[in-house]
Amino acid sequence: MAEQAPTTLGGLGEFGAVALFTKGLSAHPGVFLGPGDDAAVLEGAGRLVVSTDTMVEGVHFRRDWSTGLETGRKAVAAAGADVEAMGADPWTLLISLSAPADLPLTWLRFFHQGVLEECERSGFGLVGGDTTRSRDVTVAVTVVGRLDGEPVTRAGARPGDVVALRGRLGWAAAGLAVLARGFRSPRAAVAAQLAPEVPWGAGRQARLAGATAMVDVSDGLLADLGHVARASGVAVDLDAGAFEVAPVLATVAQATGRDPMDFVLTGGEDHALAATFATGAVPEGWTPVGRVQQPGPDGPRVTVDGAVREGGQGHDHFG
Amino acid sequence: MAEQAPTTLGGLGEFGAVALFTKGLSAHPGVFLGPGDDAAVLEGAGRLVVSTDTMVEGVHFRRDWSTGLETGRKAVAAAGADVEAMGADPWTLLISLSAPADLPLTWLRFFHQGVLEECERSGFGLVGGDTTRSRDVTVAVTVVGRLDGEPVTRAGARPGDVVALRGRLGWAAAGLAVLARGFRSPRAAVAAQLAPEVPWGAGRQARLAGATAMVDVSDGLLADLGHVARASGVAVDLDAGAFEVAPVLATVAQATGRDPMDFVLTGGEDHALAATFATGAVPEGWTPVGRVQQPGPDGPRVTVDGAVREGGQGHDHFG
Repeated sequence: MAEQAPTTLGGLGEFGAVALFTKGLSAHPGVFLGPGDDAAVLEGAGRLVVSTDTMVEGVHFRRDWSTGLETGRKAVAAAGADVEAMGADPWTLLISLSAPADLPLTWLRFFHQGVLEECERSGFGLVGGDTTRSRDVTVAVTVVGRLDGEPVTRAGARPGDVVALRGRLGWAAAGLAVLARGFRSPRAAVAAQLAPEVPWGAGRQARLAGATAMVDVSDGLLADLGHVARASGVAVDLDAGAFEVAPVLATVAQATGRDPMDFVLTGGEDHALAATFATGAVPEGWTPVGRVQQPGPDGPRVTVDGAVREGGQGHDHFG
Repeated sequence: MAEQAPTTLGGLGEFGAVALFTKGLSAHPGVFLGPGDDAAVLEGAGRLVVSTDTMVEGVHFRRDWSTGLETGRKAVAAAGADVEAMGADPWTLLISLSAPADLPLTWLRFFHQGVLEECERSGFGLVGGDTTRSRDVTVAVTVVGRLDGEPVTRAGARPGDVVALRGRLGWAAAGLAVLARGFRSPRAAVAAQLAPEVPWGAGRQARLAGATAMVDVSDGLLADLGHVARASGVAVDLDAGAFEVAPVLATVAQATGRDPMDFVLTGGEDHALAATFATGAVPEGWTPVGRVQQPGPDGPRVTVDGAVREGGQGHDHFG
């Protein structure tokens, strides 16, 4: 009897899954030893940036909404954006995949392809990972970036600086609102939820332009600028009129009875970058949207047109 | 009305959990910027070793068996052993914790303490992590080691080399056999299952002694030496009489109707190190247990007293 090819992760087995992930990986700059041993070996750069980020099925993605390809792309995008947010260059990446044994191999193959595609876009090289069994698909991604200068932290914003953005805001949140109602269009919003478009390279650009503080917008602009305000001991005031609200956001807002600015100000998961610059130093492609100010009697906070915005500032995964 | 202190992870919230993990972390060598920003910043060492490892509740640990303290210790031990297995020195570590909102804060606090305790034992410094929501507690640990020389891979074993071990073998498997029957003793075996004793520093020791190949025994000695045999293109023959079978293993074997050598040869999770050395180069504290040979007509494989051992060679988490 001919041996049947496996169709699930369980059929493939743990070592087979690792082999699938390591097959055909080409050499990546600075990687002395790639996957296949106990650990990868990297030729040390001067300064490194490391971060880890986890996506859980049913919390951050749904397999009935996202393909494996989109899930792989999103996992790299969400983790990799943190390297950009320090002003560093993407370098290497490790993936830890936990999944049920009946995970279809086609899903796994597309996931792998999505990881490689986003690695290609961003400049990360996959150097390691592991797979293990779990009830829900869980993807933990660790990213390592190289930094040939000072990191851009959240703590350097100074009163008088301009707050500027690069990348989309609100698209992923609008896509989620559409999916939650059982629709798949507008497709541009849905696609943004399933796999965000990170402005790769913008972190380095901001650092070289002298950004004083920077953050990856993963929890919503108000929440993430709140981190900058507290870390820097400043206030931030945004100018609502400075934001360009894309037509797709207006469409979804109208269909769902929401204010499009809700998506823009509190929607996470687009992984735009928000940074502060001295006046006149905002680089090309960045949109000025506000000012850094001395904190008032209420301390560090984020306001829109001088007022604290009603309702939430963003989402907390445990909220 | 007085605000009640939170008692669960959900009550604490995502940012509260991060704060709990980053509070009071002292400076660690080479860490330019610790937790609290988008990513940590490390001052590059010459050569780095990176690896990631995941533990899932119900698969790798059970909360009714393991305390938070033990789970934290085991997470660091299991991941950190991969750095040792390359011959590198522990340096920094990132933890990604996914857990249900009703996770008790006491568990989380003990988990954190366990992480710090094993970091202290091993030399790792915690520099980052994230927390997110999931049905089952899932801990993904990424470890970064420093290497001031050549890595000891799985591929360098040469015919004539001695195979030697450092650390325990079979204790964790014996502990699992005890727990699976509803017992909590012998306590030494149970403790080994809940939090292994990694021979920290032995990886560097082996590298400096000229180890030609090395592997972390996480899947069972036969399975892991099988990786070495295939990567090196050699055969490995173990001498059953060379293994010291601890009394606790004999006790558990008798109580569970098993052969104690099953625990020793196929039990994983103790994170002993197995390495190959030129004759005469086996360093202090290591036990010679076999020889590397030219592969026979059956190719690279692992035998015991010249014969392939009946039954499994180790465990596959998806098997």
